[in-house]
Amino acid sequence: MQNLIPTIPSLQDLTLSAALQRRIDGKTKPLGALGQLERLMLRLGMILGSETPVLREPQLMVFAGDHGLARRGVSAYPSDVTWQMVENFLAGGAAVSGLARQHDLTLTVVDAGVAHDFAPRAGLIVAKIAPGTADSSEQPAMTAEQCAEAITAGKNLLAQRPGNALLLGEMGIGNTSSAALLLARLQDLPIADCTGRGTGLDDAALQRKVATLGAVLQRHAKATEPLAALAGFGGFEIAMMVGAVLQAALERRVIVVDGFIAGAAVLVAARLQPALLERCVFAHRSMEAGHPLMLDALNAEPLLDLGLRLGEGSGAALAWPLLQSACKILSEMASFESAGVSQQD
Amino acid sequence: MQNLIPTIPSLQDLTLSAALQRRIDGKTKPLGALGQLERLMLRLGMILGSETPVLREPQLMVFAGDHGLARRGVSAYPSDVTWQMVENFLAGGAAVSGLARQHDLTLTVVDAGVAHDFAPRAGLIVAKIAPGTADSSEQPAMTAEQCAEAITAGKNLLAQRPGNALLLGEMGIGNTSSAALLLARLQDLPIADCTGRGTGLDDAALQRKVATLGAVLQRHAKATEPLAALAGFGGFEIAMMVGAVLQAALERRVIVVDGFIAGAAVLVAARLQPALLERCVFAHRSMEAGHPLMLDALNAEPLLDLGLRLGEGSGAALAWPLLQSACKILSEMASFESAGVSQQD
Repeated sequence: MQNLIPTIPSLQDLTLSAALQRRIDGKTKPLGALGQLERLMLRLGMILGSETPVLREPQLMVFAGDHGLARRGVSAYPSDVTWQMVENFLAGGAAVSGLARQHDLTLTVVDAGVAHDFAPRAGLIVAKIAPGTADSSEQPAMTAEQCAEAITAGKNLLAQRPGNALLLGEMGIGNTSSAALLLARLQDLPIADCTGRGTGLDDAALQRKVATLGAVLQRHAKATEPLAALAGFGGFEIAMMVGAVLQAALERRVIVVDGFIAGAAVLVAARLQPALLERCVFAHRSMEAGHPLMLDALNAEPLLDLGLRLGEGSGAALAWPLLQSACKILSEMASFESAGVSQQD
Repeated sequence: MQNLIPTIPSLQDLTLSAALQRRIDGKTKPLGALGQLERLMLRLGMILGSETPVLREPQLMVFAGDHGLARRGVSAYPSDVTWQMVENFLAGGAAVSGLARQHDLTLTVVDAGVAHDFAPRAGLIVAKIAPGTADSSEQPAMTAEQCAEAITAGKNLLAQRPGNALLLGEMGIGNTSSAALLLARLQDLPIADCTGRGTGLDDAALQRKVATLGAVLQRHAKATEPLAALAGFGGFEIAMMVGAVLQAALERRVIVVDGFIAGAAVLVAARLQPALLERCVFAHRSMEAGHPLMLDALNAEPLLDLGLRLGEGSGAALAWPLLQSACKILSEMASFESAGVSQQD
């Protein structure tokens, strides 16, 4: 456990945060006029340890995995869509593929546990723990060993990537169920409040999903610790994201959190090492019903609110230029003094 | 009047809108999963008349003007800041300068009526109607002739610019007052609900601003028609934006509306030619108190909500990559069929 979970120190540096705030306040604009973007500047400066932070070689990593629970009818799409969408990511045809091209994000798809054998190719890392998790309505989604293995793989994969920013994405038919279960358990919330329509369940199917997840929650009533809950509810892609997030935080990379499922990984990781939240930027508020509760649990201030519910890291990619803007303004925008602009009367 | 205000036809084209919606729905994602971005795709496709719209040579035009009313203490900054900020835009040091560089937007500053003589240089167009408007607490901010002259100048300036997208920006100490007055008059709203802190008034100064604007509103009680209200309340930069918006709409360019003041120009223009709203994309919800009412009046769905209150076109520039994403996804994202992904169960 001590080797598995690194210690993430707080970024507290009062000298730097004061210098950053002074720099932001001295820019040629009314005090606070860039709103949330100013808080983003402060956060990016603190993470990267600079008054003029520069984002380098951003890595958009899409972790994919299948879910044994999917056979219980918790998703509107069949499990085959997981591997088919991985192929779509790699062929460049998915939403996130285009967004990655638009913003020069290096897109890497990680097979964390898809029930399919992929031919090797550029942009794909096969780090399969197993071809899909077990059915959590019958047994834990993964063993404690598999869970540790996935976290370790996530840490190692991240450590091998260049750059100073990680954008989290995921794909896995059934994984809103895992995220809802983790949220309900770790925040002690009613499962109905945490459960949404995922890829598009109708009312009746949503009711069945809530009932199924309620039973899963009860079956793993003793899985209250973060790692036990993660093993109980899955999936491999979430566990691997937990590892990637921990490693990224340890290395003081900026972590751009996509939506509900990436949020669940951060929730687990933050329960283990709360200071990692200081390294996170929350990309958007999604339409998935439990996401507002997830954002509350993470004390998050999302950048976008576009009614997205796609996953894949699409929200993280859409928010990315705002991070670049924040850095650019910190570095390039003139001060009242340098520009010779009069101050407030 | 007939020569001044072009007729803007509605974009209604049921064949194209149906084709666009089919195209959006066929993409490899759950139905509607890209939320507001899907509505943006539809809008951009309709404006540019294509299932695969391409944004070309976007023009970010910052219209600047001074306001006679500013000497009544309605702003936290002195009027000199208008020309000083114009210099800052041109020197590349303002927020919008950096954002324009980031997103390859051609930044043009238009002197619509600044109380300052600028040396000529690249990126600056001097189209000064007068060195600042008259004090609207004493007389109309401009004559009907000046108002028509400013609108004509805006139309002509826009017609000379390349590309198919206009991003609106503005600078003018005192211009939140004009915008608040226009909103109150054209929407028949209490002036107190339309008046905000602008660049940062404290509570007492805000009270005084409301009282001052209330008196201005009363003095021009008969200025109820859009152009009469515009002439009564100013300013030159708003009138020139009205012209630019009308011309852009006529040419079926995409109009990206920044915040409260750009919104006021669109409000005036839309009262004259309502169909131009079909050509508008609203960049963000600003912190200026009257902006939510303005957005309601324009039936607008803003893309960002970052607590901005800077103007300059900064919100329009920050939202720009979302428009590019919408076009990219329309053009490049695979369909279920082309990618061989299974449909919903």
